[in-house]
This record gives sequence, structure tokens and C-alpha cells, in this order.
Amino acid sequence: MLKDFVKAFRPDDAQVREAVKDEQLRLAANQMKIKEAKLPVMVVFEGWSAAGKGEVIGRVIKEMDPRFYRVTTLSKPTETDLRYPFLRRFLMEIPEGGKFTFFDQYWMKDTTEEAASGEITGADYKRRIDSINRAERSLHDNGYLVMKFFLQIDRKEQKKRLKALQEDENTAWRVTETDLRQNRHYDEYLDIYDRYLEDTNRSVAPWYIIDSSNKRWAALQILRFLNQGISTALQNQAYAAPILQNTFRLEPIPKLSEISLKNKTIEQAEYKKELDKLQAQLRELHYELYRKKIPVIICYEGWDAAGKGGNIKRITSALDPRGFEVQPIASPEPHEKARHFLWRFWTRLPKTGHITIFDRTWYGRVMVERIEGFCSENDWQRAYNEINEFEKELNDWGAVIIKFWVQIDNQTQLERFNERQNTPEKRWKITDEDWRNREKWPQYEVAVDEMLSKTNTSFAPWHILESVDKKYARIKALKIVIDELQKACDRKKS
Amino acid sequence: MLKDFVKAFRPDDAQVREAVKDEQLRLAANQMKIKEAKLPVMVVFEGWSAAGKGEVIGRVIKEMDPRFYRVTTLSKPTETDLRYPFLRRFLMEIPEGGKFTFFDQYWMKDTTEEAASGEITGADYKRRIDSINRAERSLHDNGYLVMKFFLQIDRKEQKKRLKALQEDENTAWRVTETDLRQNRHYDEYLDIYDRYLEDTNRSVAPWYIIDSSNKRWAALQILRFLNQGISTALQNQAYAAPILQNTFRLEPIPKLSEISLKNKTIEQAEYKKELDKLQAQLRELHYELYRKKIPVIICYEGWDAAGKGGNIKRITSALDPRGFEVQPIASPEPHEKARHFLWRFWTRLPKTGHITIFDRTWYGRVMVERIEGFCSENDWQRAYNEINEFEKELNDWGAVIIKFWVQIDNQTQLERFNERQNTPEKRWKITDEDWRNREKWPQYEVAVDEMLSKTNTSFAPWHILESVDKKYARIKALKIVIDELQKACDRKKS
Repeated sequence: MLKDFVKAFRPDDAQVREAVKDEQLRLAANQMKIKEAKLPVMVVFEGWSAAGKGEVIGRVIKEMDPRFYRVTTLSKPTETDLRYPFLRRFLMEIPEGGKFTFFDQYWMKDTTEEAASGEITGADYKRRIDSINRAERSLHDNGYLVMKFFLQIDRKEQKKRLKALQEDENTAWRVTETDLRQNRHYDEYLDIYDRYLEDTNRSVAPWYIIDSSNKRWAALQILRFLNQGISTALQNQAYAAPILQNTFRLEPIPKLSEISLKNKTIEQAEYKKELDKLQAQLRELHYELYRKKIPVIICYEGWDAAGKGGNIKRITSALDPRGFEVQPIASPEPHEKARHFLWRFWTRLPKTGHITIFDRTWYGRVMVERIEGFCSENDWQRAYNEINEFEKELNDWGAVIIKFWVQIDNQTQLERFNERQNTPEKRWKITDEDWRNREKWPQYEVAVDEMLSKTNTSFAPWHILESVDKKYARIKALKIVIDELQKACDRKKS
Repeated sequence: MLKDFVKAFRPDDAQVREAVKDEQLRLAANQMKIKEAKLPVMVVFEGWSAAGKGEVIGRVIKEMDPRFYRVTTLSKPTETDLRYPFLRRFLMEIPEGGKFTFFDQYWMKDTTEEAASGEITGADYKRRIDSINRAERSLHDNGYLVMKFFLQIDRKEQKKRLKALQEDENTAWRVTETDLRQNRHYDEYLDIYDRYLEDTNRSVAPWYIIDSSNKRWAALQILRFLNQGISTALQNQAYAAPILQNTFRLEPIPKLSEISLKNKTIEQAEYKKELDKLQAQLRELHYELYRKKIPVIICYEGWDAAGKGGNIKRITSALDPRGFEVQPIASPEPHEKARHFLWRFWTRLPKTGHITIFDRTWYGRVMVERIEGFCSENDWQRAYNEINEFEKELNDWGAVIIKFWVQIDNQTQLERFNERQNTPEKRWKITDEDWRNREKWPQYEVAVDEMLSKTNTSFAPWHILESVDKKYARIKALKIVIDELQKACDRKKS
């Protein structure tokens, strides 16, 4: 696409100047509509070194209210960044509904640099492109307007600009060896850029190639596309994205009603002995996976009063507190709710070598949000695939993902609720909402069955913890965690 | 995507049987909603030989009302088909709003067969994929629901089925040498299919891979996706598609107000002489391009009373009547209006070696439809790119495209209108609508300027015919046609 690109006819300077002004004011007005409609807008600028991204961004935002946008500039990944999945440091920056984020380069730049240096090739490159396309599609499908601009200048123009920057003592520092190499190997980069643009050009997040031989003219082209894109997105507030096929291997899993809870018990003495032994094992493993830099994600879902808290405690008490974190997941905060539903989980991931335990998870999307109508039917129907994609992303990064469903029967829940209600020091644990949720047990059961069957992938399988006897469930959880971590440690050398 | 595909968990036969029934009835009900919403639905079935497409389609449509769907089966292209652009014979079959077309194979099969035989490779394959992706995107953007199913069976299963078909004397004839070759070279085909599916899997027209090891189960998977897709599409009736960048080279072109009409005249004697000479030339050229099988498309747009009819007559009177057609384009018929706006032009294309003259064209989309509000703003804004893509498709096929804008000034139109009004034998040529359109001259002028500047591509440029002196315009048109045809004949050998 870049190779075929031909500059559009450029009006004369006076016309451009006037039109830029008009479009800037139009963008300022659009900003209010964006705010009203709670539409989140991502605008991405990529392009050749010295194509003038900074100056062009400056012109684009000139008339905007600074409370409603942010500009983020791609820096070199920090050591911390490198301990997270590739997509994370970009996804951290996505705007909330009603606001803009302008990205002064983002995951294209990193990817094309790595392709240029030969760090990612073949299957790795393809996997990266898949990740990016999925992420952009998922942002779009969840209501984001994503517009991507590539600032194009030819080799001669680039050379001229780099030279001018070098000759001025105030700007000489801005010209790096990478920039100069890019100009020397312009055609190689052209190949890489062209391929990337083709590979990631989708209706859900289209590329616009911008003739940047003149910066004001470049700004005008961008402003026009941007205003047009905003108008279109505002018309599509009620858009329901297509529900794509879930292409991940799903393993069969029993329905809740088929899970026997009988005889899933353990004697106190046996429990004590096992607990000590398993916790000691887990402690050792924790050090090993810290050394091997394996990230671990443990997910707890289950009925109210099923015993999640006590179960988690038996895991954490075996762990070095410097190497794990428990993330209790309640209703999203307003700033979380205003973003992609997975954002608040992207921001809570463990670093490599660390463990994060989620006490409730992203599966809220297909349980409480489904049942309470906090999202549309299309949203939760799409979410199974989105969640599998998210977990696949984490798995590709190297994470061990262990998902627990803590299962009790309806009668057991009632007994535990009553006990909580009748025991003064436990009463804080039971709320009116718990009772209300309990009335929706049958609806939850349908939702949980669908969730288990549609997200039971080979790379992130569900494990059922039969928890009428909480001790039984704790021992089972520990064994599964140990087993999975052992396998992961065995797989990974160093 | 095919290579990674893993079968989903399959419920037992009784469950499948019951669920198929439910989904069939749901589809029958959806069909009425489709009709109500005037939504056009394209359902495509592709897959391995002996995957059971026929039987599966039968199950899918079982409960549907036959008045609202059509099944088209891909046959070998006829000799006539081969004289048209590749996409045409498929696009001919697209449904009108409110109806379904089920395609028992379509442009995937042709493309993958040609890729398998080595007929299309490299740049040709890529161009084909681009054409297909553009066509599917344009269908989606213009309100079509496009769902594509690939019926997957493994090599062993295919072998077993082919053998069973061969052994039964009633079905033996159905097994072709191609089918057997496919089974022998299963892995090669897998590569080709996988690549095609990846290359054409887009949110606007997604692929769904269907485990077809059991036909009833295959039907169930399809019915579920289909019903879900329909629900989603029904929610998106007001969808406005993104306005993509027009990536074709646009040549600068003057605004109408900048076109001088002064001194664009010709003496009668000179006219007579020139006309005879040019028509003789054109006659000769017509035979040459017939022999060389070059298709020619000549487009006339212009102000009312600008002299289009007389101009066209001077062209056609030089042509062999067996080798050209004039297509007068009025408002679309209901069955045309119910389809993609370019459909009625796809069905009117010339065969190779033939000339079609369009008296008014697809540019109605960005003129009368824009000004009269017959389509949405998003529709006509998107149309510039859609039209350029359409013309590019025709150009890639080998067509010569000549577009005329027949220009007069406002005063000249008034004089001609009055003359028509006052001359009894010409009065039929002037209607109230002409007078109403005349009042909108300034709006048309804006629309025409935008149209000319956004569709003046190198492969299908506009030519202005200054037509205050109609004779001048006729001579100019003949010269341009001769010039363009001569160039095309020179380019093409045989």
C-alpha cells in the first residue's frame, strides 16, 4: 500500500491554511460530541523519521481542549515494560470514553524496528501481526474509534530534513544513528513498512497514508480524515460487532449439574498433613519460577460463600510475599468502566516471575454483566472469543493460567448464608446483594455452564473445586497449582 | 486458520437433532425480519470435495420459505463468462434487500483451483485477493450481510466418502478426477485453502470453519452462526461504514468555473470534413479492437441539454452495430435499487471486444443521489473510493475507460430549455424535472467539482467536452475516443 501510494493533488498554501483552520475548529466542536457520546478515540501517528510527526500532531490538536486528550510518545521500553506482554504498555494508554489519546508512534514502530533488525521473523512476525490485529479489532468492537496515520516522505526529502536538523545545533541531538540508517536503507524499510501496513489495514482500524512533504498540508489531510471518522463513529453508537468464530481448541467440560459433590471430603488429620506437605512444595516451586521468570495467573470464580477467600489464603500463605499479589475484583471504577472491559486486567497483570491471584476475574463479563444487563447481549456473546484471545495472548507471552470454579450446591450456600447472618462476627460477610444474587441462581447456572464450555481452552483450562468440604477444595487447588507450575518449570530451562 | 482449526465439542445425536430443528425454525422466523428490514444476506459455502455441501445446504434451508432465497451452484464458467471480469458472474447473483442467496461455492473455489493448477501465482494471486476483499468489503459497507462457511473434513474422512460415492452406481458419476487429485494432494490443498482463508478473513465478511465430519452437526453449527449473524446485522441497520482512503493516483483537474468555453467552436465545413475523417478512423479501430478483444467503456455525464445525445450519436454512427451498445441510465428499477448501487452496472458491462456507451452512469451516486438525498451522506462520501475501485477492477481486466463531462454554462442551458419549450417537436425533451434540476445548478456544481477531483484517476481519467458549440464537442469526443482506442490497440499485440 505504501509502494502504490501516490500523493493527492495539493491545493495552494493559502487554501491549505484556511482549510486547516476550518478543520481544527470542526475537530474542537467534534470533541464535545465525543464527550457527550462517551466515545473513546485512538489516533495513531507513525511514519518515517523526520516526517514531522511532532509538528503535525501539534497542528492537529491546536484548537482542542487539553482536558479531553492526551498525547503519548513512544519511548524505549523500560526494564519493567519488558517483563510484561508486548501489547500491555500500549493498551495501558487507551483513552476512556469521551476522550482522545494521540499516539506518537505505538506498536507499529516497535514491530517494524524488530523486523528490520531481524529480531522477529517468520512465525514470530506472523504471531505479532495476529496479536495486533486482534487487539485493534477488539478495541473497535468494544466501541473504540481507531484511526491510524502513516506520514510518508520520500528518501530525498528525508535526507534533506535530517541534514537540516543536524546542521542546527539546537536540533542536532534529535538525529539518531537509527534515523540515518533508515535513510541509507530506505528501500529495505519501505519493504518492511509496506508489508506491515498491508498486514494491519482493516476496516475496523484503517490506515491512512499521508503525504507529509509539507507539514501544514499533512495536518489538513489528517484533520479531514479524523473529522470524517468521528462523524461516522458517532452515527454508529449502537453498532453490534459480528460474533466471530471461536477458533481455539475447546475441551469438553461437564455441566455444573453433572458435577458430583458427594464424598469430596478429607479428614482433618489428613488435611493437616497434606496441607503442610503441599505448601512446602509450592514454596520451593515459587522460587524456581521466580528464577525462571515465569508469570503465573490464578483465577478464582465461584458461587458466593463457596470458600474462595479461604482457598486463596492457603495458596498465598505458602508464597513469598514479595512475589505475589492478590487482586480482589469488585465492580469497575468509573474510569475502568469507561474503557475496554479487559483494560483493568491488563493493568493488573503479574510481571515475569510473579504470581497474580484474581479473586473474581474478567469472567464477570459473561456472568454478572450478562445477567444484570450491564453490557449488551452482543457484548457478552462476543466476549467468549475475546477472553480466549486475551488468555491466548498471555499464554503466548509465557504465562501459566489456572482457572478455578469453586463449586457448591444451592443448599450449602443457603446454610452458609444463614450461618453468616446468625453469627455476629461473620455478619459483615453477607449483604442484601448476596441474597438477591442467590435468587438468580438458575440464571447464573446457565451462564456458568456456557462460560465453562466456551472458554475451556487447552492453554487456559478450567478446574472445578468441589467445595462443600472447603478443606477438600483447598487441597485440590494446591495440588493443581503445584502440578501446573511444576510442568511449566520443567518446560522452561534456565 | 484451517491448519489451527480444532473441532468443537460435539453434543450427542439426539441433542443435535433437536437443536437443528430449533435453529431451523429460528431461521424461518428471521427470514421475516430480514424481509421487513430489507436486509440482503449472502451465505457462502466452500469446503473440501465430499464435505457434504449439498446436504448441509439442504438442512440449513429446510424450514425457509422458498420465495425468499435462492441457491446458486457454481458451474464451470461459460465462454461468455470468460469474456467478462472475474467477479461479474458471482456479483450477478447477489440478492436484493430482504432476500438470501446461498452460494454453493463461489469465488474462492475458482481462485484456489487456479492457484492449485499454477494459473495464478505471485502478483496475480495478490491482485485477485485484493479484488475479492474489496468486493466483499463494499458489499458489507453497502448493507449486505456476508457470511462464509468452510466445510472441513480430514484426509481420511474425505477418502472414505469418495470411495463410498464411487462404489454406489448412482453416485459414482459425481466423483471427478479433480476430487481424487484433491485427496491425493490433500496437504497441498490444505496449504492453498489455509492461505486463502487467512487472506480473506475480515470482520466485514468473516470465515467460519465448520467441522463436517457429521452433516447434521455441520448444519447445526452453520445455523447457529447464521442466526447470530442475522441478529447482529438487524441491529446494525443504521450502520455507517468507515470512509477509507482513496489510494488511487488522482490527477489534478480544473473546476467547472475554471473551464473556458470561449472560442471552443468549429466552422461547419471544417466540422463536416473532420467528422467524416474521424468516423472513418474510428470504424477501422473498432474492428481492430474487436479482433484484439479489448472491452471499451465510454461514460457520458453532463448538464441537461448539454448535447450528450447528439454527441453519442456521432460516435455510434461510426461503429458496427453488432459491436456496441448504448445503455441509457435512468432512475434504478425497484429490483436494482434493492441491490448494491453498482450492481446494475456490473450487469451492463461490455464483453471483451465490445463497446458500451453509458448515457449517464454510476456517478449518479455522487450527483443526483447526493443532492436529492436518495442515499445517506456516508453512502456518497464512501462512493468516490468505491467507484475508483470499480473502475480499477475494469481497468485490470483490460477495459479502456473514457469518461466525458459535457460542459455548458448556465445561460446556454436556459436558452436550450426555452428553445425546447417553444418548439413543439422538441417539447418532449423538456420536463418539469429539468426545470427543477436547473434550480439546483449551484449544488450540482459543487458536487460535480468534488466528483471530478476525487475520481480523476490515471486509469479512468475525465475529459471535458466544451459543448456550447455542440459540433466542437463532438469532434473533440471523437478525437479522444480514437486516441485512447489507438493507444490501447498499440499496447495489445494479437
